[in-house]
Parts: sequence; structure tokens; C-alpha cells
Amino acid sequence: MNKRRLGPVPLLYPVSIVLVGATVDGRANFATIGDCAIMGIRPALVAVSLSDGHFTTRGVRERREFSINLPTTAQLALVDHFGRVSGREVDKSRLVAWRPGDVLPVPLIDDCPANLECRVLQDGTVQHRHFFVAEVVEAHLSEDLILEGRASRTGNALGKAAGSTLPDLRALDPILYSLDERYYSVGRPIETACTEGDRLECRPVESSP
Amino acid sequence: MNKRRLGPVPLLYPVSIVLVGATVDGRANFATIGDCAIMGIRPALVAVSLSDGHFTTRGVRERREFSINLPTTAQLALVDHFGRVSGREVDKSRLVAWRPGDVLPVPLIDDCPANLECRVLQDGTVQHRHFFVAEVVEAHLSEDLILEGRASRTGNALGKAAGSTLPDLRALDPILYSLDERYYSVGRPIETACTEGDRLECRPVESSP
Repeated sequence: MNKRRLGPVPLLYPVSIVLVGATVDGRANFATIGDCAIMGIRPALVAVSLSDGHFTTRGVRERREFSINLPTTAQLALVDHFGRVSGREVDKSRLVAWRPGDVLPVPLIDDCPANLECRVLQDGTVQHRHFFVAEVVEAHLSEDLILEGRASRTGNALGKAAGSTLPDLRALDPILYSLDERYYSVGRPIETACTEGDRLECRPVESSP
Repeated sequence: MNKRRLGPVPLLYPVSIVLVGATVDGRANFATIGDCAIMGIRPALVAVSLSDGHFTTRGVRERREFSINLPTTAQLALVDHFGRVSGREVDKSRLVAWRPGDVLPVPLIDDCPANLECRVLQDGTVQHRHFFVAEVVEAHLSEDLILEGRASRTGNALGKAAGSTLPDLRALDPILYSLDERYYSVGRPIETACTEGDRLECRPVESSP
């Protein structure tokens, strides 16, 4: 495979778009962010990155807490709008229904099927970028998406941590964003057949068209 | 929307599965990781998280450098296998074709269409989890995926950084993983109509079936 060198480009794809929420100057604000990932399951850790340009950043740095709200594709217009306007100019707390968290007073957006309440543990700065590694102190998931009694198949840590709540990704319907500056929805599951010998091994199987 | 409290669960989805590469005891090794994200574009920053259990971790901590290799769904069996066996038991350097990077001597997997060479800037530990914030010093992308002359539409920083190389996410064909412990492929672009007034605004449009 011939490859081209692109220089210093953070070529990761896709990113999952979330709304990071915090209280800034006593008011709830939200930033549209793709710079977000799981950093651990037990302990439950996430990392987010915000810049000096984000109004939300000051609230996170001062209060050492924030929310992560996971939108669906139905909220794309809101998510896109929040990514283009700043809380310095617009009171975003009036543009979306939200409530404070149960453990931390961070703003949780009602229409997002999943919300995380996060407490900052460690943070750092590289030029104008501020990254935060936080523990998830509480997670909320829409009751409609919870599949009772569906146990973890492989014993994977994330599946076990999520317990009986193992919704299909298509039902969660997150917004993906990629290098071509387009939003995408999720595709189909890749069916795998798993054999257990000394070790569980899973290989993709052909799906019927 | 009624929601259930799940406790401390890092409810982010989907994760994009990558192979983090490093040299450990003089030998190339790779870890299958979903804990990875962009942390900035200029400067080009990424964050990854590894645990004490990963053989790769020691190589990253000692050498302060690593690669990120982005697989396609065609490599799912390899990726799944590398996630289940450790470099302590298996010499993964013999299971996949790779070459050293151009800027850093980190292992780049030939069959992955995108590879990143990363230098650690800051790191931290939370219990057994080690997170690394790194600058991307070089990115490589398959020539087949580069669309010449396709300029950044919105001036988005990531699109501009990627220059004329704006491949469709479906051509990149990454492996997604979610809370239900299944692998997924990517879906379709969500077409948006953008109007420019004081500000560019994009809203989804109905697609023909």
C-alpha cells in the first residue's frame, strides 16, 4: 500500500460528537466536542479536551466538574449550532431543556439519551488546549434503551459495567464526524462467530445480503 | 424521557478501535485499544490510555513514543486476536507486516490505511490506568484514499489540516465497538444544507431513500 506523509495531523476517525456541559458565571453552557474518549472502565474514566476559545473551559477549570451529553442524530441541528456559537454571545441554557445532575450540579440535557456526571482528577495544558481526565461519578441512560436480562456475552469489562443495559448502537444513534467534514450515522453490526478454546476468539462471518 | 442511573460507567459510544504500537524489550508489539481520541488539531494532539495489564505500556512509558494504526473492518480477526493475547505470550511482531516510522522508530502496520507517529508530551496515572497525551509528529494515509483537489468546505480546522485528503468515512472503513460488545461498521453520511449569514449554519436534509 503506497502512503503519503501528511505531516502532523491527528488522523483519528470517526469522532463521536458530544455536548460537554458546565456552569460558567453561574449559567449552564454547552460545547460541541469530538475530543472525548473513555480512558478506563474500572475506575470509570474519561478524557476531554477544550481550548481557550471555548467559553465552557473556564467553568470546567474553576469547578473541576462537567457533564457529557450524548446526542442522537435527531439533535444534529442543535449540536451543529452549539458548535458554531459561543456562550459568550448566546445563552445556551435557554436553548435546550436541562436539569442538574444527581451527584454533581452539572447540566444534563433532557433529550440526550445518555448523560455522564464527571469530576476532574487530573488536567494539563498544551499551548491553548486543556485536557481533563475525569472520573465518571454517575451515568444516566434512557429507560427505553435498556434491554433487561441481556447479560454480558463475553465478559468484556464495559459490557459487565453496563450491566443488563446493552443497547444496540443503532438505537443509541450517535452522531459521528470525520475528516471529510461530514456527519455520519452508525452502520450495521459486524457479526462474529466466537469459539472458546484456551481463549475466546471471534472472527467475522459473512452476513446474508 | 425516563432515565436510569447506572452508577460510575464510562458511557461513551461508539469507540473507534485502533492498534497502538510500541517497542517493548527490543520487539514491536501492538495493543488493541478503544481508549483513544483527538485532543487537538493545531497542535496535533492525541490521548490514549493503557493499563498495567498491557504489555505495550512499559514500552510507551520507557521510550515516550508510540504508533497508532487504524485498521479496516477487513482486519477485524487480527484486531480481535490482538485484543485477546498479550505480547508477553505471543510475538505479535511476527503476526503482522510492519515497518518503522519515518520520524520516530515506532512500528507502523502496512495494511492499516492510516498510521500516526506519536511522541508523548504529558502522562498520568489513575490506579492501574496510564494515560498519555502525545503530539502527532507524522501521519501517513493510503494514496488510494486521497481525493486530490477537494478543498475544505467549511474551513473546519481538521479538514484544513488534512488538506486535500478528505476521504469518505466509508472508504476509511474503521472498526467501531460499542456497549453491547459488538463491532460495527460506519453508516451513511448525514446530508446537511448549510446557509451562510452572519454565521455558517448547517441543518440535516431529508435524503431520498
